[in-house]
Amino acid sequence: RNLRIGLIPGDGIGKEVLTSGRQVLEALQSPSLKFSFLPLSAGWGTFKSTGTALPDSTVDALKAECDAALFGAVSSPSTKVPGYTSPIVALRKKMDLYANVRPVKSVRGVKGPQVDMVIVRENTEDLYVKEERSYDTPEGKVAEAIKRISEKASRRIGKIAFEIAVQRAQVRAANRSEHPTGPMVTITHKSNVLSQSDGLFRESVRAVFDADRTGKGLYSKVNLEEQIVDSMVYKLFRNPEHYDVVVAPNLYGDILSDGAAALVGSLGLVPSANVGDGFVIGEPCHGSAPDIEGLGIANPVATIRSVGTMLEFMGLGEQAARIYQAVDANLEEGKTLSPDLGGKAKTEEVVQDILRRL
Amino acid sequence: RNLRIGLIPGDGIGKEVLTSGRQVLEALQSPSLKFSFLPLSAGWGTFKSTGTALPDSTVDALKAECDAALFGAVSSPSTKVPGYTSPIVALRKKMDLYANVRPVKSVRGVKGPQVDMVIVRENTEDLYVKEERSYDTPEGKVAEAIKRISEKASRRIGKIAFEIAVQRAQVRAANRSEHPTGPMVTITHKSNVLSQSDGLFRESVRAVFDADRTGKGLYSKVNLEEQIVDSMVYKLFRNPEHYDVVVAPNLYGDILSDGAAALVGSLGLVPSANVGDGFVIGEPCHGSAPDIEGLGIANPVATIRSVGTMLEFMGLGEQAARIYQAVDANLEEGKTLSPDLGGKAKTEEVVQDILRRL
Ligand SMILES: CC(C)[C@H](C(=O)O)[C@@H](O)C(=O)O
Ligand SMILES: CC(C)[C@H](C(=O)O)[C@@H](O)C(=O)O
Repeated sequence: RNLRIGLIPGDGIGKEVLTSGRQVLEALQSPSLKFSFLPLSAGWGTFKSTGTALPDSTVDALKAECDAALFGAVSSPSTKVPGYTSPIVALRKKMDLYANVRPVKSVRGVKGPQVDMVIVRENTEDLYVKEERSYDTPEGKVAEAIKRISEKASRRIGKIAFEIAVQRAQVRAANRSEHPTGPMVTITHKSNVLSQSDGLFRESVRAVFDADRTGKGLYSKVNLEEQIVDSMVYKLFRNPEHYDVVVAPNLYGDILSDGAAALVGSLGLVPSANVGDGFVIGEPCHGSAPDIEGLGIANPVATIRSVGTMLEFMGLGEQAARIYQAVDANLEEGKTLSPDLGGKAKTEEVVQDILRRL
Repeated sequence: RNLRIGLIPGDGIGKEVLTSGRQVLEALQSPSLKFSFLPLSAGWGTFKSTGTALPDSTVDALKAECDAALFGAVSSPSTKVPGYTSPIVALRKKMDLYANVRPVKSVRGVKGPQVDMVIVRENTEDLYVKEERSYDTPEGKVAEAIKRISEKASRRIGKIAFEIAVQRAQVRAANRSEHPTGPMVTITHKSNVLSQSDGLFRESVRAVFDADRTGKGLYSKVNLEEQIVDSMVYKLFRNPEHYDVVVAPNLYGDILSDGAAALVGSLGLVPSANVGDGFVIGEPCHGSAPDIEGLGIANPVATIRSVGTMLEFMGLGEQAARIYQAVDANLEEGKTLSPDLGGKAKTEEVVQDILRRL
């Protein structure tokens, strides 16, 4: 296979971590697997120079020329800037990358809870439709935003969640490893207040479970649980080992994944994949960290793991597993860690340590 | 003063914990301070027997006869039940209790982070306006909810947040105690995605700060910070000692306060006050916990502290301080704790231990 990967570094440390991602892909090449790369622009820097944060040319090139992509991180202005809109949110919608899959896993041996969960976040709707309006009243300004939940988007994210739960159980069975509660899917919502919108999310995910179309009754082996979002955050911190796959509407998923990242020590460890039918964009969960830009000390792990997650959704599970194992080995040894993890290694040293374990 | 307190136990352990709250108020009585009590109904049980979860008679009695109230907790049905709507959400709006003030504090001496923060949650709008609609499309059902943010509500919650920050600093000065960053107010929002609605929240709170009307420049001594909500959850768990006063729109405040509760060991410790101009309802942050109803083992601390928070907003700061100190002493000694805290004491034993320290 000859695969072309779009590289969208964005701002801040985005460039540095994408270089690491590219190095890992290059190291995985073999006579039957080749990667080529297409640099593409997006972000606050792009906005400043071109007037748009996500040029059409970037989206067109992804669609026409790429098999998948890696996205770094983008800075956003601290005040409202007319015409600026988050390029990653726009990209998710324009490419219909409807699932944001965020695996969060503790380093074995490091004390603290042994977290091993995947947050499956709906990636196209909820408040992220960004349909807002403002109006004046005698008592001052009022602004409204629409939170939109559709049966279609909720069902397809539900399906991905159950499939990931089934697949994780199969991998565990093969590795003779265990999960305290898995396979389990926890639906997160706030239907006690939002009975129609979050109610529809909840019912749609349940409907996928009830009408398991795998034809093999695979979903029925999955425990199905629910948690109201506030209570979910509480339980996430009190008992994180309990969770296997957590499925949530867009905004709750955004919040929960940062919360889960806090449990494993650093946002710099948590990868994500923006997944659609036929396209995937790997993206570290951290931001653009302008304060450390150019110092060469950004943690490359989130991006390298994102390469793994991207490859998984491209049918390259074996290569993904190699990446995960190499990263786990680096972290478990704990000798070549970036400063966010308490280490002293530079980005490039972490990358080299991971490459030699590949 | 002769004060009449409405008691709305609700469901589950609500009755048990309100009994504890009442005992504490009774113990605080003096020749110049008398409390009388008016039992009022609301909740799922009330819905089942009367067809409404919040009878008009309850709201009317609060308005006409009470100086303040205590609310226990309510159960909500696990599926949508026509006509049922959360009585506490309705009560907050009907009484215009626009601020939900949730102090979260660690027990001194217990290992773990020394959290000492107050979450100031807007209590009347955001997605809690519950304006939802559903419609069918060729691709299935769609539901929408309105998230409404007003300048008026954002300004008044901002004002309360700054005032609490100033007042906390004064109390610390009097006690010669310190806070790592205080006085500080952290505005939480997601204006990188919701530029109009969360943008209005952010700007309105900032405007209150900029146009400090205390006439004494008190707010200018407060550090003003911002955190995007997902990042806020991350930092809340990585560095909780950093926070003093956190101000947030309704839903983020709901989520953050459960998160903060997780840091101090149990939701059973966290009080709240629903505050309006001239009325306050104390309410423990925990739920109705039907699983332990009637066992006499509910943790009364959240309710007893809520009595304190209620009294503070009634101008009875001295009595409030006595309650807080008695509770702190009970927790610091750690001998008479309810099961959620790893203890073996019954509700009544915890209450008696706190009463003897009053
Ligand atoms: C940068 C921001 C728009 C984005 C989001 O809210 O989705 C980020 O927080 C994320 O989690 O990818
Ligand atoms: C029960 C529920 C409606 C309520 C809320 O969301 O406000 C609760 O979670 C709270 O925090 O008081």
